[in-house]
Amino acid sequence: MAKGKLITFEGPDGAGKTSVLEALIPRLQAVFEGEIVTTREPGGIEIAEKIREVILDVTHTAMDDKTELLLYIAARRQHLVERVLPALEAGSLVLVDRFIDSSVAYQGYGRGLDSSAIAWLNDYATDGHKPDLTLLFDVPSEVGLARIEANADREVNRLDLEKLDMHQRVRQGYLETAEAEPERFVVIDASQSLEAVVEAAFEAICQRIEA
Amino acid sequence: MAKGKLITFEGPDGAGKTSVLEALIPRLQAVFEGEIVTTREPGGIEIAEKIREVILDVTHTAMDDKTELLLYIAARRQHLVERVLPALEAGSLVLVDRFIDSSVAYQGYGRGLDSSAIAWLNDYATDGHKPDLTLLFDVPSEVGLARIEANADREVNRLDLEKLDMHQRVRQGYLETAEAEPERFVVIDASQSLEAVVEAAFEAICQRIEA
Repeated sequence: MAKGKLITFEGPDGAGKTSVLEALIPRLQAVFEGEIVTTREPGGIEIAEKIREVILDVTHTAMDDKTELLLYIAARRQHLVERVLPALEAGSLVLVDRFIDSSVAYQGYGRGLDSSAIAWLNDYATDGHKPDLTLLFDVPSEVGLARIEANADREVNRLDLEKLDMHQRVRQGYLETAEAEPERFVVIDASQSLEAVVEAAFEAICQRIEA
Repeated sequence: MAKGKLITFEGPDGAGKTSVLEALIPRLQAVFEGEIVTTREPGGIEIAEKIREVILDVTHTAMDDKTELLLYIAARRQHLVERVLPALEAGSLVLVDRFIDSSVAYQGYGRGLDSSAIAWLNDYATDGHKPDLTLLFDVPSEVGLARIEANADREVNRLDLEKLDMHQRVRQGYLETAEAEPERFVVIDASQSLEAVVEAAFEAICQRIEA
């Protein structure tokens, strides 16, 4: 295994993990001697960016769920090989915004694809590399959705209920994954203030770096 | 399983399978009452075309072998769902130029990726659908390479030897796959004249349609 540490940030939409990640960097730089690399798939890797474009192209309404999953896995593979593994080899602290558990939560629990197949694909794409630590930013679905909806005060419609159902399934996927791998996960209550969430994340990372 | 028949055309480069496929269509139309659909991945399916563009982009020199395989598998999934399965449901005779066995031969035997993983991926992408018949157009590697190289008379260089080695491994992959599934494969000696090859392919298909 590589010399650096791989720390992944996971959580349903609206958990605020991206803001937390940004706020963490200066604090971590003060205590970690090596380089800190923050990235997310596709992370500026040209091949992975191109794959991402295919996934997100709004004209692709007919995209099959398995096709979508396979494309995410392909982008993950390339991003890992080109960006994450070299940084780990160089001894960096690598913070990744979404990784293997996002596929489990979104394509598995969210879209209903078979979880064991997703686990197989993640394992294949990463050659079995697992994060040293995964921070799960957990937030009740109502709170998460309210945060991402600008006009959350309006009346709830059918689409909102579908979104709520999807959000709840994704959240459940994350929580069950964390429960199954307690040694890898630290679950953080992301309904707290940003300061409190950043503090909890900082402490969890520091403990793992020293371990 | 669907009502139509799925027949795949496989073989190393230079085996002439695409020419055979073209020559076969009018002969098959004369004997087959239903619609005949000929296709190849990505087959004009927009999502699959976009994936293919990513694979073939010559600026992508850093593409990892597993990334490439996962992209081929994603394109296969989409092409199957959007094009092949609906045609089979409609009772068509569907002739596909390259399918699951190309990944085994090229990415497996050619590039050295694990064969059981490729089998798993093919099975996942196709929901276990297998061709009713696979025609393997087999050709000795020297003959196949000579056919695709315009200037095959010039002196053999290092790149040619690498190509020969790759071609031989791909051919071996095809032959071993055919040997492992004799009920699905018919191996045709593609070093014969085009007429003889077309005749052999025509007979094999007619036998399977009637079966």
